[in-house]
Amino acid sequence: MEENNFLDLAKKAKAASKKIATISTEIKNKALLNIAESIKNNSNKIFEANKKDLDEAKILVEKKELSQSTYNRLKLDENKMRDMIQGIIDISNLEDPIGKVLLKRELDKDLVLSKVSCPIGVLGIIFEARPDVISQISALAIKSSNAVILKGGKESINTNKSIMEAIQEALAKTEGFPNDVLTQVFSRDDVKNMLSMDKYIDLIIPRGGNSLVKFIKENTKIPVLGHADGICHIFVDESADLEKAKRIIIDAKTQYPSACNSVETILIHKDFKYPSELLKALEDSDIELIATPESWHKEYSDKILAYKFVESLDEAIEHINEYSSGHTESIVTENKENAKIFMNSIDSAGVYHNVSTRFADGFRYGFGAEVGISTNKTHARGPVGLEGLTIYKYNLEGNGEIVKDYVEGKKSFCHKDLV
Amino acid sequence: MEENNFLDLAKKAKAASKKIATISTEIKNKALLNIAESIKNNSNKIFEANKKDLDEAKILVEKKELSQSTYNRLKLDENKMRDMIQGIIDISNLEDPIGKVLLKRELDKDLVLSKVSCPIGVLGIIFEARPDVISQISALAIKSSNAVILKGGKESINTNKSIMEAIQEALAKTEGFPNDVLTQVFSRDDVKNMLSMDKYIDLIIPRGGNSLVKFIKENTKIPVLGHADGICHIFVDESADLEKAKRIIIDAKTQYPSACNSVETILIHKDFKYPSELLKALEDSDIELIATPESWHKEYSDKILAYKFVESLDEAIEHINEYSSGHTESIVTENKENAKIFMNSIDSAGVYHNVSTRFADGFRYGFGAEVGISTNKTHARGPVGLEGLTIYKYNLEGNGEIVKDYVEGKKSFCHKDLV
Repeated sequence: MEENNFLDLAKKAKAASKKIATISTEIKNKALLNIAESIKNNSNKIFEANKKDLDEAKILVEKKELSQSTYNRLKLDENKMRDMIQGIIDISNLEDPIGKVLLKRELDKDLVLSKVSCPIGVLGIIFEARPDVISQISALAIKSSNAVILKGGKESINTNKSIMEAIQEALAKTEGFPNDVLTQVFSRDDVKNMLSMDKYIDLIIPRGGNSLVKFIKENTKIPVLGHADGICHIFVDESADLEKAKRIIIDAKTQYPSACNSVETILIHKDFKYPSELLKALEDSDIELIATPESWHKEYSDKILAYKFVESLDEAIEHINEYSSGHTESIVTENKENAKIFMNSIDSAGVYHNVSTRFADGFRYGFGAEVGISTNKTHARGPVGLEGLTIYKYNLEGNGEIVKDYVEGKKSFCHKDLV
Repeated sequence: MEENNFLDLAKKAKAASKKIATISTEIKNKALLNIAESIKNNSNKIFEANKKDLDEAKILVEKKELSQSTYNRLKLDENKMRDMIQGIIDISNLEDPIGKVLLKRELDKDLVLSKVSCPIGVLGIIFEARPDVISQISALAIKSSNAVILKGGKESINTNKSIMEAIQEALAKTEGFPNDVLTQVFSRDDVKNMLSMDKYIDLIIPRGGNSLVKFIKENTKIPVLGHADGICHIFVDESADLEKAKRIIIDAKTQYPSACNSVETILIHKDFKYPSELLKALEDSDIELIATPESWHKEYSDKILAYKFVESLDEAIEHINEYSSGHTESIVTENKENAKIFMNSIDSAGVYHNVSTRFADGFRYGFGAEVGISTNKTHARGPVGLEGLTIYKYNLEGNGEIVKDYVEGKKSFCHKDLV
C-alpha cells in the first residue's frame, strides 16, 4: 500500500478508536459472540483458504525455504478452530476493563476527581504464521475498546483474509458497532508505514519470533509491548532439594523447549551436595549440557541447557542481572532467607522460588486472556492481560471552580478519597 | 564526556539501581532528611555558586542571548531555598511506593503469586535552567528506589554542582545507602549518550520547554515521560452559564499564562446566548483574541486566546480530538448529558466539567509530589506522582510445582485471590 493510502487508513482507525471508546459493554460482547458464530458458520471457507496456504507452504518446505514447524503452526485443524471460537467466547465473558473507577477523590466540596480506565487508542499488531492470532487479538482489542491495524505473515495470507471476512461480516450486523475498528494490511511496506506513524498508532504488539520483535523495537518510536528474548535462569542453591531441582529443571527445559519461559541456563552453588546426580538426571532426560561462556547469551529454544557453578548467591544474582532478558528466573532452595534475597534482588518480570519458570503465562496467572509477555520496564510487565491494553484519564467535575481561589488562599483542598 | 566513559557511568548507575532496589524505607527517608539538612547547612555555598551563574547570565541577558524569564527561573532566593528544603522533607513523609503488594493470588494449594511494586531502574533526567529541579528529582528517585543520571542546563552549572555536592555529602554519611545512585553529567555529548543507551537507561524525563521535549522524543528509543505541547481547550456549550464561563476561561488563561495547563483555544456553541458578553469580558481581562485556523495548532503561553464558533457538541469534540495535545480540556455546560458525552468522548489526560484547566497538577490532585505531566498513552498519563516511577514484578512461591502436572490434568488451578 502507498504511504498516503496507509495514512488514510491510519486516520480512519484513529477516528474509529474514538467511537469504540464510548460504546457499551453489551455491544462489545454482542460483537464478540457474533464473531464466534460467524467463524463457526464460515469454517468450511476458512479451511479451504487454509488449504490453499498449506499447499503453497508445502512446496516451500520441500524446497527447504520454510521450516516444518512453521508449516505446523500454519495448519488449522478442527481442534484449533474449536479453540479459536471458544477463545472469543471466553473473552466475551471477561469483565470489561474500560470505565473502571480507579480513584475517586473530593478535592474540595463539589469538586470531584475520578481516575477512569480507558482504551489506549490504535494498536498495531504484527504477527507471523499463526492464523489463530488474528481472531484472538481482534477479540482482545474489541473487549478493551481499541482499534487495530493487523499485519499477518505472508504464508497465511489466504487464511487471514478469510478469517477477517468472517469477522467483518459479524461486525457489520452488530447494531451500534462502529466501522473501521479492525483493518488488515498485507505488504512489507505496510509494516514500514505502521512503524513510522506514531501520530496515529499508540502501541505496537509483535507476535512472533525474536528476530521479528528485535527488528520492530529497532525501527519504531511507538511503544512496543513484547519481549525479544526469553533467557530464563534457574539457580540451584547450596541447600536445594535434589528431587525438586530435578523436577523443576526438567519441566522448565523439556515440557515445551521452544517456549519463551523455558530455562536456558542453570547456575549451581559450588557447595550444593549433588551436582553430578543432578546433571546426570538432566542428561537422562535427553538434555544436552553446555558449559561455555558463549552460551550465557543464548536462547536455545531446544533441549540444550547451559550450566555454570557459582561461588555464592550474590554471584548467581549478578550473573542473572547481567545475562537475563528480564523474563523469568527461579531459585531452588530450602533456605527461606536466600529465597527472599533472590526474589528482591533479581530485576526480572517473574522471580520464582521452588517452581518451574514455565508458569509465566497469563492463563496460569488467572488473567483469563493473554495479550503477550512483556519484558518492558514501563507500562506492563510479565504476562499481560486485558488491563495492558488500557490506560486512564482524569475526569474533574465542578461548579465553576478556579485555581486563583486556591492559590490566593480563599479556598483550600481537602483531598478526601471517596473510593 | 567520551562515549566509553559515559558507558562506564551508565553501567555503574545500573548496578546502583539494583542495590537501591533492596534498601529499607528507613534508610531512604534518612537519606532524604540528611539531604535536606546538608542543603540547609551548605546554603551559603549554594547561593555563592548561584551568584556566579547569575553574573554570567546577566551578561547574556544584556546581549539578548538569554531571556529575562530564564534569568528569573535561574535565581535562587531564600524563599526558593526554603521551598526546596521543605520539598525534600515532604517527600520523606510520603508513603514508600516500593514493595506494595498489588495482587496476591493462590494459583493452587501452596502455589502463591504476588504482584509487587518495584522501581523502574535508571532514570535519565534532562532539565533546563531551574536549579531546584535537581534536589526535587533526586528526592523522588531516592524515595522510589531508582538510580538517576542528571543533566542540567549549562546556565545553572555552578548552582547544580554545588547542590549536588551537598546531596552527595549527605548520602555518603547515610549508613547503608549505596554509591553511584545519583550521577550528574554536563555536556551536550552526554545528552546524546544518554539518549542512545537504552540498554542501561530505562526512562527519560525531560523537564523544560517544548523544544527540549520534542528534541528528546525524536531522538531516543527509551520511553519518555512528559509532554511537548499543552494545547488545552475549553468548550462553551449552548447551555453554559455566562458567569462560570467567564470565571473559568479568565482563570485558565490569565492565572499563569505560561503554564502547560493554560487554555489556548475556546470553542463556543453557535447557540450560546451571550457570545459578545463573554468575548468582551475576556478582552477586558487583557486577553488578546484570535480567530484564524493557524491558531488551532498553537501554544501561545501568553495572554493570547484562539476562539471558534462550532455548530454542535460533536463538532467541538472532533475539533479537540484533532488539535489537542491530549493534555486537559474542559466543558462549560449546565447540561449534564452533554457533559457526560464530552467527558467520555474526549481522548485527553484530563477531561473536566465546569472547572478551570489549571487544576491539572499533581499537588492539586493530592499526589503529594509531582514527577511531571504526561500526555503518553501508555504507562502514566496526566499529572504523575511517585507511582509513575514504579513498575511491578511477579513473585511465585511454591514447593516443587511443575507445569507438566497442570498440562496433563493431574493438578488444576484454583485462582483464589488472597488480597
